[in-house]
Amino acid sequence: MHPKPLSDPPAVDHPKAAIDGSSLDLGDYLKDRAGLVERHLSACLDAAKAPVGRLQEAMRYSLMAGGKRLRPILALAACEAVGGEIESVLGYACALEMIHTYSLIHDDLPCMDDDDLRRGRPTNHKVFGEAIATLAGDGLLTDAFALIARSAKQAGVPAELIVDTIAELAEACGSSGMVGGQAIDLLTEGQRLSQSELELLHGMKTGALFVAAVCGGARLGGAGPAQLRALHNYGSALGLAFQVTDDLLDVVQTTDHLGKRSQKDQERGKATYPSILGVEEARLRAQQLAQQAREALTSFDSRADPLRMLAQFAVERSL
Amino acid sequence: MHPKPLSDPPAVDHPKAAIDGSSLDLGDYLKDRAGLVERHLSACLDAAKAPVGRLQEAMRYSLMAGGKRLRPILALAACEAVGGEIESVLGYACALEMIHTYSLIHDDLPCMDDDDLRRGRPTNHKVFGEAIATLAGDGLLTDAFALIARSAKQAGVPAELIVDTIAELAEACGSSGMVGGQAIDLLTEGQRLSQSELELLHGMKTGALFVAAVCGGARLGGAGPAQLRALHNYGSALGLAFQVTDDLLDVVQTTDHLGKRSQKDQERGKATYPSILGVEEARLRAQQLAQQAREALTSFDSRADPLRMLAQFAVERSL
Repeated sequence: MHPKPLSDPPAVDHPKAAIDGSSLDLGDYLKDRAGLVERHLSACLDAAKAPVGRLQEAMRYSLMAGGKRLRPILALAACEAVGGEIESVLGYACALEMIHTYSLIHDDLPCMDDDDLRRGRPTNHKVFGEAIATLAGDGLLTDAFALIARSAKQAGVPAELIVDTIAELAEACGSSGMVGGQAIDLLTEGQRLSQSELELLHGMKTGALFVAAVCGGARLGGAGPAQLRALHNYGSALGLAFQVTDDLLDVVQTTDHLGKRSQKDQERGKATYPSILGVEEARLRAQQLAQQAREALTSFDSRADPLRMLAQFAVERSL
Repeated sequence: MHPKPLSDPPAVDHPKAAIDGSSLDLGDYLKDRAGLVERHLSACLDAAKAPVGRLQEAMRYSLMAGGKRLRPILALAACEAVGGEIESVLGYACALEMIHTYSLIHDDLPCMDDDDLRRGRPTNHKVFGEAIATLAGDGLLTDAFALIARSAKQAGVPAELIVDTIAELAEACGSSGMVGGQAIDLLTEGQRLSQSELELLHGMKTGALFVAAVCGGARLGGAGPAQLRALHNYGSALGLAFQVTDDLLDVVQTTDHLGKRSQKDQERGKATYPSILGVEEARLRAQQLAQQAREALTSFDSRADPLRMLAQFAVERSL
């Protein structure tokens, strides 16, 4: 790792946790950043015109239900890793969480994974009904694009960068990315997948949004092409590491710990890393991927230390 | 109307129907423009990476099911009304149809309006199941934003205009626009609404996307602020005129003619213009709104003749 202190810290007012390789505490850092994201998310919801109370309530219910806020934190960390201003990327970071939340609401619907529990609370459709839950997802997804465009423009980010960021994010989340991955997941239930098929599926379903988080955050922060290529590699290894770990957690943890139903992958005959590789091999694969993510960052200075630590966090959380 | 021939026709290769106030035939014009949009839509679907066959099939099923293509045609016509190049707005026009189609797929779901028939064919979820239908909608909505960003950039539209267009479109379609309108529609079923409440609902559910079609098309075509204000008024009157007419068609036409179940508004206790105003008064209101839309165009020359005719079309189709 990179233990020397920052010679040139980025200009950031909000975070309390110092970004300093020598003293960075991951727990404090994550808590601080999640707090920053949640305050901004809540302000965005309040600022929305919100003409339909029940719909806004449903959107807020799932958006403000906690969670690690990992995607927004990655966007902020990537922006800072390239020396960008956090203000340029705060709206984008919140938009990522809105999109992630929409995908959870729709995935939980009875016609999809039919889940009753998410983050320790009843799922959106259990509280608001299927129709409003579907619309809350649609609203979060759509509002996210307005937020990115408005907030990045207001922060003075060059319009060309905003257009490219929106295009890449939409591709990451659309039919050839996250939505496509969820479709494969549903269509292959009960089928035996090879490791490479599983990695393709998760590259679309989970990985693409991680890559968009990291690359979009860096682009809005002014990254150059070589930095973007490196961060693409980082994001895609990290996304997979995260997913392998998710599969492991589903096997080894109880529903109480997870805040969502555990062991459900197996019940549904879903292919998972532990089912293909075995638990020990899957653990090793997760570590390998986290290492690969860190190695993608060799050309970055200590401002990328949060990204380095996040790679470790992705595979070590609660295992 | 404006019968004199165009002095300065816009540079357009594709359309066969001449845009010429003296000889413009609305039927030819609509057919020609719908054909242009459909060829481009189909090319966009083919060009997509499409890694999930079944999902792409579901998206194509609803997207290529015909329909008037009114929103894309409005965007093209608005672009030409301000002297813009049609190439600048073709991707945007297709994206509007993708978003309109996503909204139909989700609105038809069992948890929403529960419709079995759309454009004379079984609805998406009847053919592909609810899960794939939900994802096809999600995919179309998300891919639309990628298409706008990529195509307008490729056509050389200034990035600032693309960012503003995306922001306004997303606001028109999100929780304070189309999605919010659908939520109000569901939440007020069986309630008696006043005319002004109904107009607020339809302004969100239908009108906002009409305004975005017209203003986005014009902005990408290089419209100035005064033109955009006039076109905003045009689009919002047109959207309402269209909706009043839709309500009338639901009352006076058979299911065979409509290609979707007729009389369903009344069965569900939905407030409609005929139910509030009576059929004759509703017809008058539609005509009034179409007139209002045309009056918003007084400062435009004959290049806006297609927009003028479209206002009439919105209220006269099959009535």
